[in-house]
Amino acid sequence: MRDELLQRYADLVVEVGANVQPGQIVSVQADTEAAPFARLIAASAYRHGARFVDPNYVDTYVKRARLEHAAEDTLDYVPPWYGERLLAHGEHHAARISIVPNPSLGILDGIDPKRAAKDALPFLPETFQVINARTTNWTVVAYPTAAWAGVVHPELDAEAALERLWQEVEHVCRLDEPDAGAAWGQQRDELRAVAERLTERHFDALHLEGPGTDLTLGLLPGSVWAGGGDTNADGIEHLSNLPTEEVFTAPDPQRADGVVRATKPLVLAGSTLEGLTVRFEGGRAMQIDADANAEVLRGHSELDDGAARLGEVALVDAAGRIGKLGTTFFTTLLDENAASHLALGNAYERSAPEDVERLNRSAVHIDFMFGGDDVSVTGIAQDAARIPVLRAGKWQL
Amino acid sequence: MRDELLQRYADLVVEVGANVQPGQIVSVQADTEAAPFARLIAASAYRHGARFVDPNYVDTYVKRARLEHAAEDTLDYVPPWYGERLLAHGEHHAARISIVPNPSLGILDGIDPKRAAKDALPFLPETFQVINARTTNWTVVAYPTAAWAGVVHPELDAEAALERLWQEVEHVCRLDEPDAGAAWGQQRDELRAVAERLTERHFDALHLEGPGTDLTLGLLPGSVWAGGGDTNADGIEHLSNLPTEEVFTAPDPQRADGVVRATKPLVLAGSTLEGLTVRFEGGRAMQIDADANAEVLRGHSELDDGAARLGEVALVDAAGRIGKLGTTFFTTLLDENAASHLALGNAYERSAPEDVERLNRSAVHIDFMFGGDDVSVTGIAQDAARIPVLRAGKWQL
Repeated sequence: MRDELLQRYADLVVEVGANVQPGQIVSVQADTEAAPFARLIAASAYRHGARFVDPNYVDTYVKRARLEHAAEDTLDYVPPWYGERLLAHGEHHAARISIVPNPSLGILDGIDPKRAAKDALPFLPETFQVINARTTNWTVVAYPTAAWAGVVHPELDAEAALERLWQEVEHVCRLDEPDAGAAWGQQRDELRAVAERLTERHFDALHLEGPGTDLTLGLLPGSVWAGGGDTNADGIEHLSNLPTEEVFTAPDPQRADGVVRATKPLVLAGSTLEGLTVRFEGGRAMQIDADANAEVLRGHSELDDGAARLGEVALVDAAGRIGKLGTTFFTTLLDENAASHLALGNAYERSAPEDVERLNRSAVHIDFMFGGDDVSVTGIAQDAARIPVLRAGKWQL
Repeated sequence: MRDELLQRYADLVVEVGANVQPGQIVSVQADTEAAPFARLIAASAYRHGARFVDPNYVDTYVKRARLEHAAEDTLDYVPPWYGERLLAHGEHHAARISIVPNPSLGILDGIDPKRAAKDALPFLPETFQVINARTTNWTVVAYPTAAWAGVVHPELDAEAALERLWQEVEHVCRLDEPDAGAAWGQQRDELRAVAERLTERHFDALHLEGPGTDLTLGLLPGSVWAGGGDTNADGIEHLSNLPTEEVFTAPDPQRADGVVRATKPLVLAGSTLEGLTVRFEGGRAMQIDADANAEVLRGHSELDDGAARLGEVALVDAAGRIGKLGTTFFTTLLDENAASHLALGNAYERSAPEDVERLNRSAVHIDFMFGGDDVSVTGIAQDAARIPVLRAGKWQL
């Protein structure tokens, strides 16, 4: 039963997520815990004509040993061949498939968060360069493990927790539909329609209001909203996130004022931040608080100038499958698609060419959720008119 | 019990095998099946002051999918960043630890050997370049898995087979000694003494005689015999093989005449060759036969000009721990240290500088065993005198 589901899931990742083309090199990045899924994806890619599958396993146990024992001034070291390999994937116009959570959840429990914040691997800053060059067709997908299921459903025994998590992933990936590929075609069309309507409004700013949240963030004159996947420079359509429920754009990094309260926990460098609030002035995060581990995000936000400014605002309505589950997955891929979110750090280049220079630049990109049924989103037009965008989780456009 | 042994083994690999130095980058290459051992080695390396551990997992299941599904004309493709990473380890003067068997034994059963011969990964031709530059301190070590134990001890049930294989590895790695590090110091001294005596003889050739074997192979005027580990360009002593029982040199690739019969099975590209015989004329392998799968070695021997000529002759006496076990491990690291052996393909640069140009060059290096108690080795001096070297497994020098 699980085997049959895993096989269909692997095929969906290859066909719809990355949309692997005959003759392509296919990078598969996975935690060692996800090896069973990586192997099925690799086999599916070869059946679809891949020239070479390049498995790239990341071992969270080795990362833990580093954080426990290595000298503190070495923890931010990344061998140059890590980024070079990723850039080579871009140069070879590879398909890229990343399996999350990575690092694996649970294995870094108890590590000093200040040390953990210094080691961003497996994340590489070159990721933005490759994504923005649009040379690869890529996707990020999730693989339920026992350890992850235990974090998500601690109230269940191990077997039941894993079964529940699998049911949820099957549902949100639309693998419970008779034709998952067709279901994703429909979802893609709907998200693209919403993104187009938002782009056409040319809002000057967005106003976010909810419990603990009152934030106005500026948009750039040429802001383009995206959603429902991407088409790369070679004309290959792909779903960068599988599942995806969001539409998003890059805000003006110089204009954000007010406070935003996260509505989901943020998992960062192995630490969980609950009750996160961020206060912005002039586009810059001036104050970061949380019930615990706030110092982890503070550390990240100090890594470079752009790390304390916004690189993304994404909107998710309440019709999506993820938010309805009411589950916190402690994994950005799923949680960010459950609710509207902001990201500190680097922007994806989705704006008009004249705005590209103004987008936020950073070595980091950290999403945190602010959305929910009690959070409203209002567009502020160039003439200062207030246009409802989201009310009680429903699109108003 | 096993945990305690594994921990001591990992420390031996780090301290005596690779001799990891504080501040070094440490490459750990392993099949995904060997992840538990790779993690202990990584943790030990960090405790010994490693700057960064670079785990490089190879997945034999992904290799199998490639051999099953990929187009035949793509099977010899190796992405350029594979070799570049290895060369970077050399440029960074890293420690390099390889865990074998890799690819994992058993997983490639039933694959067409002609297709298998085209995909040499995880082997990389750049290996010789890095070894001969002596920029890294490196070691090759073995990790018993259930699948490997089943191949080695098919007469035992799974648990007993794994237990037996662990006992054997513990013994041959001298982990059953009160101080394994001291035991390896003694073994190193003994092998170095034998190698020195062989070098001082300046033999013109060696004559191998035994059942099915009558081969004369020429040595170069400046042949230097090595054994008992290496000292790299930075003066770091390391045991390139753990365990090691051999002394070896690079022969004259233009002079080998006669026939040699292998005394152990050769495992190559996932195929097992039993009853291997190779006939040489003028240094070149002219005829390769075996009870089965001879075409796998024939395919490898045709890869380039040096692949059909000798790059190594190694002598092992009967006092070693591996040969006494009488076990065939189907893994070169252990089997080559059980018996004297030859290698087709690339030579390690152990000769006098004036001979380096004459050494065999190839993209491959394939060891096969010819030694045993009924195989004698005779040195032929420059004046044609015949000097006994090995008789009934005992050194005669």
